[in-house]
Amino acid sequence: MKKIEVCLSPELIHLYDSRGKIVIIVDIFRASSTIVAALANGVSSITPFKDLNACKAMQEKGFIIAGERDGKQAKGFDLGNSPLAYLKGIYKGKELAITTTNGTNAIDTIGEEASQVLIGAFINLNATVSYLKNTKEDLLIYCAGWKGKFNLEDSLYAGALADSLDSYYVTECDSTLAFRTLYQTQRKNLKDFISNASHTKRLQNQDIEKDIDFCLSLDLYNAVALVEKGKIIALRNA
Amino acid sequence: MKKIEVCLSPELIHLYDSRGKIVIIVDIFRASSTIVAALANGVSSITPFKDLNACKAMQEKGFIIAGERDGKQAKGFDLGNSPLAYLKGIYKGKELAITTTNGTNAIDTIGEEASQVLIGAFINLNATVSYLKNTKEDLLIYCAGWKGKFNLEDSLYAGALADSLDSYYVTECDSTLAFRTLYQTQRKNLKDFISNASHTKRLQNQDIEKDIDFCLSLDLYNAVALVEKGKIIALRNA
Repeated sequence: MKKIEVCLSPELIHLYDSRGKIVIIVDIFRASSTIVAALANGVSSITPFKDLNACKAMQEKGFIIAGERDGKQAKGFDLGNSPLAYLKGIYKGKELAITTTNGTNAIDTIGEEASQVLIGAFINLNATVSYLKNTKEDLLIYCAGWKGKFNLEDSLYAGALADSLDSYYVTECDSTLAFRTLYQTQRKNLKDFISNASHTKRLQNQDIEKDIDFCLSLDLYNAVALVEKGKIIALRNA
Repeated sequence: MKKIEVCLSPELIHLYDSRGKIVIIVDIFRASSTIVAALANGVSSITPFKDLNACKAMQEKGFIIAGERDGKQAKGFDLGNSPLAYLKGIYKGKELAITTTNGTNAIDTIGEEASQVLIGAFINLNATVSYLKNTKEDLLIYCAGWKGKFNLEDSLYAGALADSLDSYYVTECDSTLAFRTLYQTQRKNLKDFISNASHTKRLQNQDIEKDIDFCLSLDLYNAVALVEKGKIIALRNA
């Protein structure tokens, strides 16, 4: 049977072997939610960058550029890291280049050895679940965290995914056990529970309650976000 | 008000500032349980070693030597890492030198900058809680994990401690929030829940069910384990 594991922070990723596995990267606040929202609203592809200047340089090549550091929009960028910016479809058909504090770094650390890399968010949870049910490979859920530290929202997404896929995978991984159970006991008041998280408070201080609410909404979109040759594209479930 | 934080793995400890804080190191299976059991049963002091040979050399100086690697007793040592070895009091008044896979490494990584270093276990949970209620410093709970990875038993101890001290500390730390809640929902069947953990299974394969059961027992002893000048000693609550 397929195996499932959860890595709780980029600082722990070297302890996991991603060879031949499907790796799903999650940064709920807000990179992975933004990526899924952008693709679901017609952005044609998203190229993630670790480096701010390399990302910025893509503007000359006709890309829309989105940049965030420490929760704020980076200077000189078209967009920050809000998923709401894409909802009106004004970037439909455009190519996006993006760099964020945690999420795009995590994408950068997963090499070619993974059999496939996905980007996961609560807003497309079921789409990802449906997709993964039909795969054969072991699964590694990779939480982007906050500057290397564990965070609540990414690990609870991992728990939600593990819970939804419970009959499709086995696990010997303690983080999977812990967060599947924590999700099961908190699923009915997930928004309230995560509102205590450090990152939620950080974002609340920046007056972006609407972003938080959006990122914690379940199943708004049916698109799966897939990394292919350095770009993230949408795969729509049949 | 005092602050509380939880570090889930030695690979994350560099992200925490231990200056001026009380650091409590936890390695439930089995180093910290063994240390507490040994002290509570009359061992006069315990010197932790990272290096196997350095620990072994202490035999010539009259120390009892305990050594464990990968769950098994290391070759040439008097004892392995079972807390049960100390229960008959046959090492009363002796000095012990100990090296283990995870726990003694964690002790080694905490420098002099902490205001105090304790060793915590379920078997002396309440003793530690009582002690900490009367301290002024912030608290950092440091989980030893398993070879760098997160584990369930250490993090649930952290959750138990945070829960017991809830009205004495505030927290902005997501791992504290997560494991305090997980402990609250699992406290009534803690042994069953932890029996699914990877390390429990690893130990079960070695036929040491009695060790597991002992390490998950609450409040057997009233001694607090305190690191002082490189040695761990018992402090009995008044």
